Amino acid sequence: MRVGVLGGGQLGRMLGLAGIPLGIRFRFLDPGPDAPARQVGEWIRGGYGKLEALETFVSGLDLVTWEFENVPVETAQTLRDRVAVRPNPVALERAQDRKVEKQLFRSLGIPTASFRTVDSREELLRAGADLGFPAVLKTRRMGYDGKGQRLLQSARDVDGAWAELQGSPLILEAFVPFRRELSIVGARGKDGKVVFYPLVENRHRSGILVRTEAPAPQVPSALEELAQSYLRRLMGEMEYVGVLALELFHVGDDLFANEMAPRVHNSGHWTQDGALTSQFENHIRAVTGLPLGPTDPEGVTIMVNTIGRVPSPAAVLRLPGTHLHLYDKVPRPGRKLGHVNVRGATRADARERARAVEELLGDLEGHQ
Amino acid sequence: MRVGVLGGGQLGRMLGLAGIPLGIRFRFLDPGPDAPARQVGEWIRGGYGKLEALETFVSGLDLVTWEFENVPVETAQTLRDRVAVRPNPVALERAQDRKVEKQLFRSLGIPTASFRTVDSREELLRAGADLGFPAVLKTRRMGYDGKGQRLLQSARDVDGAWAELQGSPLILEAFVPFRRELSIVGARGKDGKVVFYPLVENRHRSGILVRTEAPAPQVPSALEELAQSYLRRLMGEMEYVGVLALELFHVGDDLFANEMAPRVHNSGHWTQDGALTSQFENHIRAVTGLPLGPTDPEGVTIMVNTIGRVPSPAAVLRLPGTHLHLYDKVPRPGRKLGHVNVRGATRADARERARAVEELLGDLEGHQ
Repeated sequence: MRVGVLGGGQLGRMLGLAGIPLGIRFRFLDPGPDAPARQVGEWIRGGYGKLEALETFVSGLDLVTWEFENVPVETAQTLRDRVAVRPNPVALERAQDRKVEKQLFRSLGIPTASFRTVDSREELLRAGADLGFPAVLKTRRMGYDGKGQRLLQSARDVDGAWAELQGSPLILEAFVPFRRELSIVGARGKDGKVVFYPLVENRHRSGILVRTEAPAPQVPSALEELAQSYLRRLMGEMEYVGVLALELFHVGDDLFANEMAPRVHNSGHWTQDGALTSQFENHIRAVTGLPLGPTDPEGVTIMVNTIGRVPSPAAVLRLPGTHLHLYDKVPRPGRKLGHVNVRGATRADARERARAVEELLGDLEGHQ
Repeated sequence: MRVGVLGGGQLGRMLGLAGIPLGIRFRFLDPGPDAPARQVGEWIRGGYGKLEALETFVSGLDLVTWEFENVPVETAQTLRDRVAVRPNPVALERAQDRKVEKQLFRSLGIPTASFRTVDSREELLRAGADLGFPAVLKTRRMGYDGKGQRLLQSARDVDGAWAELQGSPLILEAFVPFRRELSIVGARGKDGKVVFYPLVENRHRSGILVRTEAPAPQVPSALEELAQSYLRRLMGEMEYVGVLALELFHVGDDLFANEMAPRVHNSGHWTQDGALTSQFENHIRAVTGLPLGPTDPEGVTIMVNTIGRVPSPAAVLRLPGTHLHLYDKVPRPGRKLGHVNVRGATRADARERARAVEELLGDLEGHQ
């Protein structure tokens, strides 16, 4: 079977590594200039909107999926006339606009922060007065890794934020005073069966995920079930096939949905070395119609992203319990270049081992 | 780092899958017509003795290793003038000729079956009289998966075996009345440090490995240490860097060396899903000078080869505890096309699960 993937970044690379042992061949469409997935399949270098590149890409494929949620919905729809596209492209539409996404959450009874759409300075002032401060101004589209966001502590920050983000459709969100950030990753098969990985706890720095602890500590079963019910509703509503991730704020005993990712997700990378089946393999199994694999965690795994600079592989692998995953990308400040999964039999073990990794990577990153 | 691999079969494919996450790019030299490793790197199609292909292959590489032990020693030696070659090519020389191999074993105090070299029908008759029957007549070179071997039950079988195998240098080996077949896989780093996977128990059919149980049941620590000491001696003597496998006959409380494989080995495939670091990753770590990873097994893993026909991935993955590894090779009777690793928390679990896999594959293979 030949699977095409829209996007050829690290997620595509790891989908390929997981899918090749299942006998699948891969082709990636990516505008470049580099494409980490090129090591594990054919790389068609081209834009997602270029008909000629799309034609070359789709020819001979059995199936198309994506690893990048900002692929134009029209591209996915166009390909659908030629070949099966999974997940359902409607998921791109819903995930690409923060307003549409939040409306979807609310229509399914999934709590979110209060929000107002903002298209002018006046609307921003009014929204700030309505929601109160602090609040977060975000572009509705194309935001990732903390890009396209400004925290407004008070009305005094309005003008600065407006000056920076105006020109794009915006949304102002009430700041959620969360205890912690959690996320849940699950997969839904063609037959509608779903599996869930356990809730994990995430830590961000400058809007970029830096650390995931899996499973999250101190999760009562009611909280786990709540998160699963939210993800299940989303998957059902969108007739979703594949891996879907949902970022959540943990507030009191409640969970507020922050955003969803209709694809494999950075907070699921721990599954490569800490779960019976990785999120990458389960995505491939789901979209190709294979039975989903068990998601049970083994011990406690902590994923630490390597950002901006590539660590010495020898230094990482000398530390106990580490597994190294590099993306073969050109280093640049703030760029995700790899991750280290570190596993321990107990949480204390895993944390001690993760601390050693973080110290090593911290020394590299300096005080950035 | 760019690593070249002599051979582009399934072992190369799995080396690539294990090495890409470490940031390594691969190039494979393989005469074709198909090369399962082509999905995970550049494929130079050419013979191992073709200077032009070797030139294209070696250009820009940091390091050469192999996945196929019948690469001509001269090829490895020639490449050595251009680039680091690991393991030490002397290992090819020793492994390619059963006589040289057995002499090496004996020189290191490692027991083997009694043997005689045979270059004529008369020598064969004399060797049979010396060693007694049953005995096994083997080609000294290029044997694999039971090819180039004939079991002689008595002197009456001499003429038939001679007719089939004459023309190649031969060796007659006394038949070892073994309790079972075991093997040990280990890795030695550039710094001389060694790690060992546990002894595993192997089952063959028509000379082809069909099943490995890891760790082997009922292994007293003295036996484990004996096997490790043999492998350690071999690695030390050859100044070996990389993964080395040693096939053993378990006889009474003793171990007799059958043959070694100076490469990753089929009886180590279980490590992909059943050990903290796979043999493939440890080979890559060793040859690239990275620290070796822990070899601890997790639970009990049974590897079942899929031979001759490719099973339905869905049927395999529907069974509990299974991990599927296909090689993307054209099916042919007796050809290894993939393997299934099946893990259980206990030996009983693993065996029950393996039985289900074997039933599924057995139905495919019929009575072959």
